Amino acid sequence: MARVSAEHLEARRRQILDGARRCFLRSGFHAASMQDVLKESGLSAGAVYRYFRSKEEIIAAVAEEALETIRSSFDRVAAAEVPPTPDELFTEVFGRLQKSVGAGEDSRELPRLLVQVWGEGLRNPELAETLGDAYGQLSGQWARLVEEYQARGWVDPQADALNVARTLIGAVQGYLVQQALWGGIAPEEFAKGLRALVSMSVPSGREDR
Amino acid sequence: MARVSAEHLEARRRQILDGARRCFLRSGFHAASMQDVLKESGLSAGAVYRYFRSKEEIIAAVAEEALETIRSSFDRVAAAEVPPTPDELFTEVFGRLQKSVGAGEDSRELPRLLVQVWGEGLRNPELAETLGDAYGQLSGQWARLVEEYQARGWVDPQADALNVARTLIGAVQGYLVQQALWGGIAPEEFAKGLRALVSMSVPSGREDR
Repeated sequence: MARVSAEHLEARRRQILDGARRCFLRSGFHAASMQDVLKESGLSAGAVYRYFRSKEEIIAAVAEEALETIRSSFDRVAAAEVPPTPDELFTEVFGRLQKSVGAGEDSRELPRLLVQVWGEGLRNPELAETLGDAYGQLSGQWARLVEEYQARGWVDPQADALNVARTLIGAVQGYLVQQALWGGIAPEEFAKGLRALVSMSVPSGREDR
Repeated sequence: MARVSAEHLEARRRQILDGARRCFLRSGFHAASMQDVLKESGLSAGAVYRYFRSKEEIIAAVAEEALETIRSSFDRVAAAEVPPTPDELFTEVFGRLQKSVGAGEDSRELPRLLVQVWGEGLRNPELAETLGDAYGQLSGQWARLVEEYQARGWVDPQADALNVARTLIGAVQGYLVQQALWGGIAPEEFAKGLRALVSMSVPSGREDR
């Protein structure tokens, strides 16, 4: 009995989160009402409120799932024998994320959702903490990769790996901002820009020139 | 008479925008009410509504001023005989912006404001257009700089300059997201990461390794 119950609970939770995510992707957090979420998930208010006390809690759970996809995709890709270049990593992880959230034809849906998650994080301390934990883990994952780059002579061994990791994550976040607001930059185009960026050889400081 | 009037109008407008910006920096767009803006600018509702019909219009005007500072600082820095490296450019422009908006001791104030501007842009088509124009101009400015880099052999001449420019702008936007949400990354640290990033020599594709 207990086992069936646990499965049943999980299936219901899934149903709510999938419905909510579809609503959020389509209309955004603020425009999507609890009514829309109920309608999309096909459940009653009573059923949904047994799992989540508020729209904020649902938003946090949807964000948590997306972050988990990013984390695990990153680990899978980074485990390759030859470390993936930043553009390869981006292409793989972003592709998996897009598939897992079920983003539609509109390539701005997922970026818009992520930018909204950050905005929400500025107002909701619990979400900010969830995002902060995920960011800490992701920076750590990426810093280990940068250390691999350093061991291969791809990156200055004197550079702080965590700093470089944060900047790389930043480039991806910035791409999402641009795509959310203005669209028109296919992930492949961004990947090419990232590739050109990490193959630059800009002098390292004014004193060297 | 007409001349005094124009000066007077401009001074009042300034007073409103300066007050509003202080409110927004301190409390964010959503938490700051029109009442707070009136109080901070020391003007009556009647006086303020003669210049701006809504909080949204004030937000757009504050954003427009910040964008103008970014644009003109960029031009000034980029005009140097030896083109500034991305990290030098970032340090200069960000420093000028921080001074011009009068951001306080809290290094997260300005990033938080900018992240809120983007979030607002997702919901407000007029603001999105203002931001889009500014982004188009900034990408163009930065692309011309990348062409200078290419002429000096710092960047692969085959790379699309606009793509590289967008990725560089992205790195800065991502820094702002991180700083807004989690803080603790001084602009100098980000600049160091950016410097290491553009002095990488990551192989350009799997086939080359």
